[in-house]
Amino acid sequence: MRIDIISVVPELMTSPFDASIVKRAQEKKLVEIHFHNLRDYAKNKYNQIDDYQYGGGSGMVMMIEPISKCINKLKSEREYDEIIYMTPDGETLNQKMCNSLSLKGNIIILCGHYKGVDQRVRDLYITKEISIGDYVLSGGEIGAIVLVDAICRLIPSVLGDETSALTDSFQDDLLAPPVYTRPEEFEGKKVPEILLSGNLKKIDVWREEQALERTQKLRPDLLK
Amino acid sequence: MRIDIISVVPELMTSPFDASIVKRAQEKKLVEIHFHNLRDYAKNKYNQIDDYQYGGGSGMVMMIEPISKCINKLKSEREYDEIIYMTPDGETLNQKMCNSLSLKGNIIILCGHYKGVDQRVRDLYITKEISIGDYVLSGGEIGAIVLVDAICRLIPSVLGDETSALTDSFQDDLLAPPVYTRPEEFEGKKVPEILLSGNLKKIDVWREEQALERTQKLRPDLLK
Repeated sequence: MRIDIISVVPELMTSPFDASIVKRAQEKKLVEIHFHNLRDYAKNKYNQIDDYQYGGGSGMVMMIEPISKCINKLKSEREYDEIIYMTPDGETLNQKMCNSLSLKGNIIILCGHYKGVDQRVRDLYITKEISIGDYVLSGGEIGAIVLVDAICRLIPSVLGDETSALTDSFQDDLLAPPVYTRPEEFEGKKVPEILLSGNLKKIDVWREEQALERTQKLRPDLLK
Repeated sequence: MRIDIISVVPELMTSPFDASIVKRAQEKKLVEIHFHNLRDYAKNKYNQIDDYQYGGGSGMVMMIEPISKCINKLKSEREYDEIIYMTPDGETLNQKMCNSLSLKGNIIILCGHYKGVDQRVRDLYITKEISIGDYVLSGGEIGAIVLVDAICRLIPSVLGDETSALTDSFQDDLLAPPVYTRPEEFEGKKVPEILLSGNLKKIDVWREEQALERTQKLRPDLLK
């Protein structure tokens, strides 16, 4: 899988992609991540990539020309399955979308910054608009960090132990059951006895019950 | 505001906090962010902070003892308004929660990693469990990046232009209206005439209509 990320502050994304799962995915050559600094596609010598919005109001808007130049260059080099724009008014990301995106070949992620991109960018180039949640961030870069991490860990062979991802929250529309590790007792609080029983069948049943109970209590909407 | 972040991979979070809004908030001394590497609180010489889960199953669990030591040390130094655990089965983050958290004095953010923390950590220390969305990430560090960014930009004087945050999506349960900037025409696509009219009253009305229309079309749930 190849991911091209277009941004005005690509340096914001270096540390998360240089650690943990995403680093491993790149080292294993399962994912290639390329950053494109929009200022390299700026029109004039001031490296201008944003401008005041028509109609007045605070907040700068990212201009269409540099974005168009960058996307067209990438599209001339290879085919893309999706050109994604990270924006709070996009479709809300969920695990099913992550599963499906993890199967793609090449994708472009365009990070909005400031007040967002000129609407014509969205009309002309974008195939999918994604929001990571109902809150506003300083830029789409943080959304891209989330999206890339969520996708990368689903690519086969990225995680060391395949079954680990399958028992995570949301993979079966259930929250994960509680987990415990040593010591058996901490300040009077004990590990549930069933987990020490060695009876794997009973433990499985208990975990399923706990997952269901927790989901019913905390996120009944997932069960509908 | 002071934010203490406890993690096994604090280096994952450096670049987002060293750029953009969060950097500015720290430079203006409006926010202090402190990282705490859980391995510094490990019990034994192997710096062990995780262990196999009771009852079997793949994925390591973060042990209670190092976390307890770290949280107790911080609590002995100052009072905390919230001790937050980032977890996919927490309360789903939204703009209202961000607004309210941006008014706090001191908070701790504990990042889950691997299969999460021993359940007793949640029972004993955590005052608030937050999820940034219905998807699984490689660790709570990415959730912490999102949370800190979303909060920091709401602290008064962090953003250059106060009114900019107020017109973002979600602040009034509406998505933001489309924005445009120069040029007036790009490959035959023109800026809506109303925005060039100079009639600020009409532009305001148009923007409100557009915001409402967009919300009705894309996120009718926000209007309920």
